[in-house]
Amino acid sequence: MDSASKQIAVLGSTGSIGQQTLDVVRALPDRFSIVGLAAGQNSDLLARQIAEFQPRLVGYQDKWEPQRPANTEYEVLSLEDIARHPEVNTVVIATSGKSGLSPTLAAVRAGKTVCLANKESLVMAGQIICAEAKQKGAHILPIDSEHSAIWQCLNGEREQPTQIILTASGGPFRNYSPAQLTEITVEEALKHPSWQMGPKVTIDSATLMNKGLEVIEAHWLFDMPFEQIKVMIHPQSIVHSMVEFIDGSVKAQLSYPDMRLPIQYALSYPERLPNPQLPRLDWSRINNLTFEPPDYDTFPCLKLAIEAGIKGETYPSVLCGADEMAVELFLSRRIRFVDIARYVGRTLEQHQVVPNPTLDEILAADAWAREEVRQMAEGDNR
Amino acid sequence: MDSASKQIAVLGSTGSIGQQTLDVVRALPDRFSIVGLAAGQNSDLLARQIAEFQPRLVGYQDKWEPQRPANTEYEVLSLEDIARHPEVNTVVIATSGKSGLSPTLAAVRAGKTVCLANKESLVMAGQIICAEAKQKGAHILPIDSEHSAIWQCLNGEREQPTQIILTASGGPFRNYSPAQLTEITVEEALKHPSWQMGPKVTIDSATLMNKGLEVIEAHWLFDMPFEQIKVMIHPQSIVHSMVEFIDGSVKAQLSYPDMRLPIQYALSYPERLPNPQLPRLDWSRINNLTFEPPDYDTFPCLKLAIEAGIKGETYPSVLCGADEMAVELFLSRRIRFVDIARYVGRTLEQHQVVPNPTLDEILAADAWAREEVRQMAEGDNR
Repeated sequence: MDSASKQIAVLGSTGSIGQQTLDVVRALPDRFSIVGLAAGQNSDLLARQIAEFQPRLVGYQDKWEPQRPANTEYEVLSLEDIARHPEVNTVVIATSGKSGLSPTLAAVRAGKTVCLANKESLVMAGQIICAEAKQKGAHILPIDSEHSAIWQCLNGEREQPTQIILTASGGPFRNYSPAQLTEITVEEALKHPSWQMGPKVTIDSATLMNKGLEVIEAHWLFDMPFEQIKVMIHPQSIVHSMVEFIDGSVKAQLSYPDMRLPIQYALSYPERLPNPQLPRLDWSRINNLTFEPPDYDTFPCLKLAIEAGIKGETYPSVLCGADEMAVELFLSRRIRFVDIARYVGRTLEQHQVVPNPTLDEILAADAWAREEVRQMAEGDNR
Repeated sequence: MDSASKQIAVLGSTGSIGQQTLDVVRALPDRFSIVGLAAGQNSDLLARQIAEFQPRLVGYQDKWEPQRPANTEYEVLSLEDIARHPEVNTVVIATSGKSGLSPTLAAVRAGKTVCLANKESLVMAGQIICAEAKQKGAHILPIDSEHSAIWQCLNGEREQPTQIILTASGGPFRNYSPAQLTEITVEEALKHPSWQMGPKVTIDSATLMNKGLEVIEAHWLFDMPFEQIKVMIHPQSIVHSMVEFIDGSVKAQLSYPDMRLPIQYALSYPERLPNPQLPRLDWSRINNLTFEPPDYDTFPCLKLAIEAGIKGETYPSVLCGADEMAVELFLSRRIRFVDIARYVGRTLEQHQVVPNPTLDEILAADAWAREEVRQMAEGDNR
């Protein structure tokens, strides 16, 4: 498919990735066309986006309807119906948390090209999504900077890599002791040292849960066994990931931390397009790139996630559900930062696995895990 | 061409690159077959190589003939005749200095795949070689680690890169002052911090002339304007070079400094082959990759080379001839380390350029430059 004909739906258009996707489309108006926009929050912004991009398809949450801008004509549809709409060929899944799962599946089943920024879809239901994608010939293109880096490094290579090295900034608490972590405030956790992102992924970055979810995502996207996926802490966030090949050669992708690059690459693939808004590395200022192994003891979420990924079945769904609820409780100041890992770990321990789960069983495991964490927090606060 | 059918001639088989090429062939005997071997020195080693690989074609210098091993049958030919021989499809040019030029041209004119480790061929006659390669459909594949890195990073990319970043170890005298450089002995200059190489290229690495020659080589290999080729000092010699693309994304290739990797990649391309002898990066030991701009004032050879490359015509040939003679005089302890740059600079200044030179004019410029340097040294020593 030529990028000139890309008819794009952005699901989650008012979030961080959604807004940056529209920045890219705005910078390259001749190459991309917005056919659908959908958002679950910030109706004012959605209304402005509708006025600017004039999409033919719009989705929003039941509880509110964006003020319909003057001179606009659009059809209101569910996220799933937008994802599978015949006028759409490229679906950007930029929603946060498990809300991405159902539209991702709808897009994949309709054989669309799916530009995936939502981690939870593949983490929770990687097996189902990848099987459907294969059957329907749908392409899943990563928008996460790490997975985009891996994908860029794999470009043109014929053989499966021997190792994927996912880099992690280490988050704002990289050199903290376990004792220091108990004191962390919501404000501190929301200050990421290198990336500007939504609140859920920012907290997940601080706990390293985000990196664990990315390990599971990499497993599905690149068909890599978990033992061949390595995590390295790289605080400068310049090297976004690396790939080792069968002859020992390693390729890395580098850029400043700016999500517009992986977004644009997914949209323009297999082309690269010039975009003067994208920053170029200034080698007079980059003089030191450091790498160190992650501290699995101080940041147990990383280990919990990898273990859940290896066990598979309903465990990754429990991981996602428990984490999403725990992060929500932390952001509303009802639990401490360190409780996130504690509650997620306890929930995984208590889970009765469902082998070879259906989508309903995956969603049920997620719901069960949320409720478990909610009850744990209530019990602890009683 | 499938690598299973690669019929290889190694010209310069007893030198550092030649021996490592045979190491790679030895490790992957099912994929590569040695059809020709040629060397200008070390007849004992050549005789052992002939006994082991049983090539059908052998070349050697007039002044000596290797002792013909028992049970061997081979035809003795010139390097050029081996390079264009119908039984050969892949020619590894591993000779040092300008002796690679004529066999490279012969191989290119015969439409062979040329795995090029010899820098001087492209530096002196890039325009002629590239034009002939285009006309005859010959592929020139780089064996230099930097150019292999760039080539690996370009794999699968459709667009011309916007910048090539050639890395340099900086050599053994990286932080030396100009005054310290005047005292350098041959032994000190032959100790390269990260690479094991032949004496000419080791001295060229210490003066940074080698990096300058690589800039010119990159210009021809990748059709890149000089202003889009940048040199960065990277003392760890892990990142072998980088490429910046039109969207600002940068790819880098990493490995330990081991020439067998770029040699194998050129031989196996477009495949990568497993070779347990090739080392893998140990990320528990790599924790810091540093980058700094080169010191053009203390290491004037780098600037001289880039300027000669930009001027083109017969200047790069004069650069090569003057440098080859100056390095020879330094190695025989007749001039100082700092005289290399001084003599090369003076020779370039005195050169009367020949526009749009023929091969003979290129070779004449080289010969003139050698003689100039020889006379300068004699005059200074008188």
